[in-house]
Formats: sequence, structure tokens, C-alpha cells
Amino acid sequence: MTGWINYNLDQIGHGGLKKEIAPGKNHGVFLLGHILTSEDSISLFLGKGELLYPEYNLIFTSGSKLQPADKYPSTELLREQLNKVFQRNTNLYSEMSDSELNEPHSLLKGKMEDDFFKTKEGVITKFLAHQLHHTGQLSILHIIK
Amino acid sequence: MTGWINYNLDQIGHGGLKKEIAPGKNHGVFLLGHILTSEDSISLFLGKGELLYPEYNLIFTSGSKLQPADKYPSTELLREQLNKVFQRNTNLYSEMSDSELNEPHSLLKGKMEDDFFKTKEGVITKFLAHQLHHTGQLSILHIIK
Repeated sequence: MTGWINYNLDQIGHGGLKKEIAPGKNHGVFLLGHILTSEDSISLFLGKGELLYPEYNLIFTSGSKLQPADKYPSTELLREQLNKVFQRNTNLYSEMSDSELNEPHSLLKGKMEDDFFKTKEGVITKFLAHQLHHTGQLSILHIIK
Repeated sequence: MTGWINYNLDQIGHGGLKKEIAPGKNHGVFLLGHILTSEDSISLFLGKGELLYPEYNLIFTSGSKLQPADKYPSTELLREQLNKVFQRNTNLYSEMSDSELNEPHSLLKGKMEDDFFKTKEGVITKFLAHQLHHTGQLSILHIIK
């Protein structure tokens, strides 16, 4: 997944990330930040420590009000920070056993069967799908003018 | 992944699939067929039998010439067939052991280290990323007019 995302971001380039995926819709800077903060939040769900970039959790979540692309941190910085989050998560995963993956995740409230993620493995696989989904949206920026 | 894809296809609806993801670019019918034939081809890479829909391998691969949306089979039929492919693959995966996942895939030519997929597990995880990526592209159809 990390290779897939970085490949697409490379193809789009920093200039391309400033474009919108459709008129009046999210631009690439927001989507990059959204992938970053989603990936960052995995550590909370796994009970493995705090967010590396808590400030992004306010501005890049799905309920945040979209600002112009140049109001956000630079895409150079965001990509560097994304790679730090990828590296932290790769390290976390390498320390997890199969049995830990089957544990309820750490933000679970209420019954496991009613929860979207359920287990720690559910967190990892669903965020993987989510991140790749948004990467597909981002990829539009490479083909449009 | 199957749930994620079906959820998005439901959101877009059959009418929405006829739209293009960007002016002059792929429409949803092509992307749906592309996901279908990619998913179908997994059985070849795993050495688990022929394509269910070999005719789609000609018209929905990345090199195929794009035709107008109404020149393709109906999206109702494509979705039904996609679910048949998902079901076949789910059955295949349930019969595979961890050691089989580490075997070289069945279409490997040349050295494993030079191959994009390498192992059977590599086939499954990379197609998963590919399918979710195109689902993200499809999701644009739900937000554009």
C-alpha cells in the first residue's frame, strides 16, 4: 500500500496535487492530508500511542471545511510526514502477533459485533481499503488537465 | 474489499456508472468491467482454473479502446457477474494454506525476484490494491453532476 500511494503521488507531482478531483470538490492537498491523518490514527485504534500530527486530525478529517490548497502545509512537508507515519506503522505491525490482531481494537465502545472495525486486524484492513480508495481518487489528478 | 466495492457501486447506481470520471476519460461501465476482469484473472495467477468471462479480458483491459458506455453489456449484468467472480475467489482463498500463499504464482516467467507479483500472496494483495484504487476512481461518479 505504501508503495502504491507513493507511486501515485510521484506521478501526480506537487503541482498536480493542487488541482481538484472534480469542479468544486476536494483537491489533492486535502486528500493527501486526509490519507496522512487516517494513517496516523491507526496507532490510536491499536492502542500503540498518540497521533504524530494531532493538528491534522482537525483539518483533514471528513467533516473539516475545505480551504484553498495554498492554505494548507506544503505538499513537500505532508509527503515527508506521511512517510514518517508509514514507517511508524510498519514498525508497529512488525511487532504484532496473530493473536493480537484478533483482539478488540482499543477505541471500541459497546459490543464488538456492532462495531465497524471490530478487531485490530479489522482496523488495519479497513484503513488499507480506505487509503487505497482515496489514492484512486487522487489518481484522477494525473489524467486531468 | 468486496463489501467496499459493492457499497460504492450501490451509491453510484446504474445511471451514474454511465458518466465519465473526467471529460473524455473512462466511464464507470469500463471501470466496473475492468475491476471484473482483473478480479477474474486472479484464478489464472493462482493456477486455479480458467477465466469465468474470457470475453471481458479483451474489452476491459488497460490497453482496450474505450467505447461509448452503451456499447458494453448492461451494468446490471456486469454487477451480477462481478459477484460471481467475488464468490469464486472467496472460495479459492478459503482453500489456500499459508504455505501455498508463499509459492511462486502460476504465470511467473523468469526469476521470482524480478517479477511484479512474485508469490500467490503477492497476486492477491496487489490485485486488492488495484481494485480498491479503481473503486476510488469510480467514487468520483457519486459526487459529480
